Amino acid sequence: MLEPGQLVMLVSPKGKRYFRILNPEEILNTNDGQLQMQKVMHRGFGSTVYTHLDREYTVLKPTLYDLIKSVKRRTQIIYPKDIGYIIVKLGIAPGTRVVEAGCGSGALTTALAWFVGDRGMVYSFERREDFASLCRENLEKIGLQSRVEIINSDIEHGFGPENVDALFLDVRTPWDYLDHIPRTLIPGGPVGFLLPTTNQVSSLLSAMENGPFSSVEVLEIIVRRYKPVPERLRPEDRMVAHTGYLIFARLGAPGTEPDENLELCLALQRNL
Amino acid sequence: MLEPGQLVMLVSPKGKRYFRILNPEEILNTNDGQLQMQKVMHRGFGSTVYTHLDREYTVLKPTLYDLIKSVKRRTQIIYPKDIGYIIVKLGIAPGTRVVEAGCGSGALTTALAWFVGDRGMVYSFERREDFASLCRENLEKIGLQSRVEIINSDIEHGFGPENVDALFLDVRTPWDYLDHIPRTLIPGGPVGFLLPTTNQVSSLLSAMENGPFSSVEVLEIIVRRYKPVPERLRPEDRMVAHTGYLIFARLGAPGTEPDENLELCLALQRNL
Amino acid sequence: MLEPGQLVMLVSPKGKRYFRILNPEEILNTNDGQLQMQKVMHRGFGSTVYTHLDREYTVLKPTLYDLIKSVKRRTQIIYPKDIGYIIVKLGIAPGTRVVEAGCGSGALTTALAWFVGDRGMVYSFERREDFASLCRENLEKIGLQSRVEIINSDIEHGFGPENVDALFLDVRTPWDYLDHIPRTLIPGGPVGFLLPTTNQVSSLLSAMENGPFSSVEVLEIIVRRYKPVPERLRPEDRMVAHTGYLIFARLGAPGTEPDENLELCLALQRNL
Amino acid sequence: MLEPGQLVMLVSPKGKRYFRILNPEEILNTNDGQLQMQKVMHRGFGSTVYTHLDREYTVLKPTLYDLIKSVKRRTQIIYPKDIGYIIVKLGIAPGTRVVEAGCGSGALTTALAWFVGDRGMVYSFERREDFASLCRENLEKIGLQSRVEIINSDIEHGFGPENVDALFLDVRTPWDYLDHIPRTLIPGGPVGFLLPTTNQVSSLLSAMENGPFSSVEVLEIIVRRYKPVPERLRPEDRMVAHTGYLIFARLGAPGTEPDENLELCLALQRNL
Repeated sequence: MLEPGQLVMLVSPKGKRYFRILNPEEILNTNDGQLQMQKVMHRGFGSTVYTHLDREYTVLKPTLYDLIKSVKRRTQIIYPKDIGYIIVKLGIAPGTRVVEAGCGSGALTTALAWFVGDRGMVYSFERREDFASLCRENLEKIGLQSRVEIINSDIEHGFGPENVDALFLDVRTPWDYLDHIPRTLIPGGPVGFLLPTTNQVSSLLSAMENGPFSSVEVLEIIVRRYKPVPERLRPEDRMVAHTGYLIFARLGAPGTEPDENLELCLALQRNL
Repeated sequence: MLEPGQLVMLVSPKGKRYFRILNPEEILNTNDGQLQMQKVMHRGFGSTVYTHLDREYTVLKPTLYDLIKSVKRRTQIIYPKDIGYIIVKLGIAPGTRVVEAGCGSGALTTALAWFVGDRGMVYSFERREDFASLCRENLEKIGLQSRVEIINSDIEHGFGPENVDALFLDVRTPWDYLDHIPRTLIPGGPVGFLLPTTNQVSSLLSAMENGPFSSVEVLEIIVRRYKPVPERLRPEDRMVAHTGYLIFARLGAPGTEPDENLELCLALQRNL
Repeated sequence: MLEPGQLVMLVSPKGKRYFRILNPEEILNTNDGQLQMQKVMHRGFGSTVYTHLDREYTVLKPTLYDLIKSVKRRTQIIYPKDIGYIIVKLGIAPGTRVVEAGCGSGALTTALAWFVGDRGMVYSFERREDFASLCRENLEKIGLQSRVEIINSDIEHGFGPENVDALFLDVRTPWDYLDHIPRTLIPGGPVGFLLPTTNQVSSLLSAMENGPFSSVEVLEIIVRRYKPVPERLRPEDRMVAHTGYLIFARLGAPGTEPDENLELCLALQRNL
Repeated sequence: MLEPGQLVMLVSPKGKRYFRILNPEEILNTNDGQLQMQKVMHRGFGSTVYTHLDREYTVLKPTLYDLIKSVKRRTQIIYPKDIGYIIVKLGIAPGTRVVEAGCGSGALTTALAWFVGDRGMVYSFERREDFASLCRENLEKIGLQSRVEIINSDIEHGFGPENVDALFLDVRTPWDYLDHIPRTLIPGGPVGFLLPTTNQVSSLLSAMENGPFSSVEVLEIIVRRYKPVPERLRPEDRMVAHTGYLIFARLGAPGTEPDENLELCLALQRNL
């Protein structure tokens, strides 16, 4: 039996997904008829519940991947493959305070809020009001809004919060805002960027050469999927070939050696 | 000024990294002479401190990536690129209870402990005593041992804990243990596997066809790094080509549609 | 001015391509009206000619890539990316005698015929009569039929020709035919295979361990395309992720060292 | 039994490769003692011959891959993976006349000479005298020198030959020479470029926008190798991640539709 306030994912016969914060008094209106949330609460995860039209819904505990997948979007979103790596590189943890700009539809915002927990805080800058609203709406639906301060403003004059643990910029011209970073990020803290074109990467790297950055890395994350057929295992015919380039650095801290060869070193080590 | 009990990373002039839980009374013996942790605490993140031989050390707040990089290893470890994706797919969050087997040197264990926070728990099975010790040692060094129960036992007869939120198997013959999963994982919960060869993937997929699994996915995560030179931007000459195949599924929950086309859909949407 | 017997490619306003062996007396019926081949011959490559309905056609000298692209197909074809590598690995040259099975729609057959020239010969086995006819038709359209002997037969009892320079098998169960190779291929000669699944690759490798093969290699060729926009250079959003695995070996010749590390060595050398 | 004038590859017990044009009177001095070429001629391909010190050499008919692998180099060379694709895109065939600049150590030159046959011609520009000599030496060793005219000159004032079928530039600033192409290449003819950095690709694309070019494509060819172990099939741990970007276009010929979607279309077709 589940508890009020818990987040559940309800999957329709056709695969449509509904996310709800459990309220035993709620009656959910679905495409397949009404669903009593009290039933959902009693049956629990993995169970099947029926609408008043006798349609079968599956009750699941959503993963972050499920949430990202269901972000209602009017912009391109950051992908799970990129989000996973960003989280690890930026050191996001329960309690982390992090700044991001812009929030767009809120896919990365959702992930940041997910990981910082109740004691952390995400400061999310978005200059377009419609995107800020969409992002807020997406967070409210899954109960993460209290972990995020959405600031509907551009970052021309900098970021408000100070001494945050990490910073991520998903904006078109991040080189315009590098100067604001030292006033916001802890010294030595990690900063990340996402940029779709090689020209933008060159512009950013060029600007970073003047700034107080070290351990600069540029990389792409590529997911290659396979058809899960045991006797005919093979990659999918087509794949997503590009979302964006990820750039990471540390603010200041010149003593830190570059991280870029870690994975090659690891590969060498495992051959020993 | 930092607080006692905080985790710090100290970087030597040559890039060697030391991780310490701050104790103002400790004197750290480095290759470059002694370092007073009280000084480190007073100077704070991003600062430079000097050993009694006047060698310069940088004080940093470590990210998870830093910790994984520094895991002392006697086995191949799971890479950051794979760890990030695993965390997102398994829905690891503050408070999550998760089972993994085996723990090896503890790279994934470190990441799981990092994200589950103080209220979560990682149950980590490892049948080899030397690896279990190594894993414990690695966790203690960074202060995460209280979040992990290392069980020095094989999983032939199953896992102890019940109703955990997620499960990950990094063992040679995971198909031998599928039957134990329903007794441990919440219904509909996410399960993941890492396997280095295509033959193992086929064997696992074959066994899963009999088991209560849905939404089966097989994929690889590939990182392609670039030389961060703005006026001569180009990929590195060589790269890590393979670590392992990741397999994900949900326990039961036949109503859930496969996730495999999410990223392709996202790509199509962004072209609109 | 072009000469009778030359191969030309005529491109319609909508990009439809017609391939013709020049005959000055021919009147080509296109979707856009009639085109006098005499005009085409007089105007020459790169020129524009007009149909009797005054529609503009471009006259081009086709490349092999153009021909492969226009192969009329009822089967999956081998891709240009794979064909280029196969040709180089098999040592196809003017004068080469080569066996392939099966020919399918004839994409690789076209390439082999293209490169062996007037003094070489392609022996192409295809057990399905409809595919053999299609392959023949595709070759005739571009004037390469005299370089290819299409044998409408399976290869259960072996290949007819002896002492050919190279051999390529694009069949579902190539391991069934390995025993026939030594009677057909010159000692030490190169042999290649294309297989879509990892299971087939394992089966083939397994069978080859018993046979007289050396220098066995398994690889994939991947093409990643970029949007050709100078100020926003970036990879295409989607790509072909898989066509098939290529396997190469040499018949006998145990003294030959494996080729597999050539490209890694080359990469190391260029860093010197 | 082989014929005088044929090209043979002799492989030493340690895998060292010697290439010789067969002359029955020659005595080859190897690291393992003297080898009578008359014996080589009599024994034929696939056979074993012995030096006067009784060391075993294998006699093989070399493939183009073997030749490229053995190019004596003082520059980075173009790789087989790139060469195969270039040949197919440029439409190189027996009889083709093609211009390349610069020739470097001559890897692509070797391939072009290999495919154009006795009736074709390769015009190879190289401004550095030492590279021109090296290239010539590499071609002579394998008997292809008569198919190549090496022009030890820069291309500042253009190329000499007219109406060649194809053109390839492997120079640092190809955009400086675009204006010379129409005087050399047949109208509508294919042109290719190899460039290592994204910045160069952007510069070239930018210059081509002014020039008479159509069907512009940018791509990379990636080879992923597998360990050929049937029961443990998996990719190699490390791979060559980058050699260069390939750019292709057609001179003029605005009516031609872009080729860039061929491979995606092919993938879609094979799913039918």
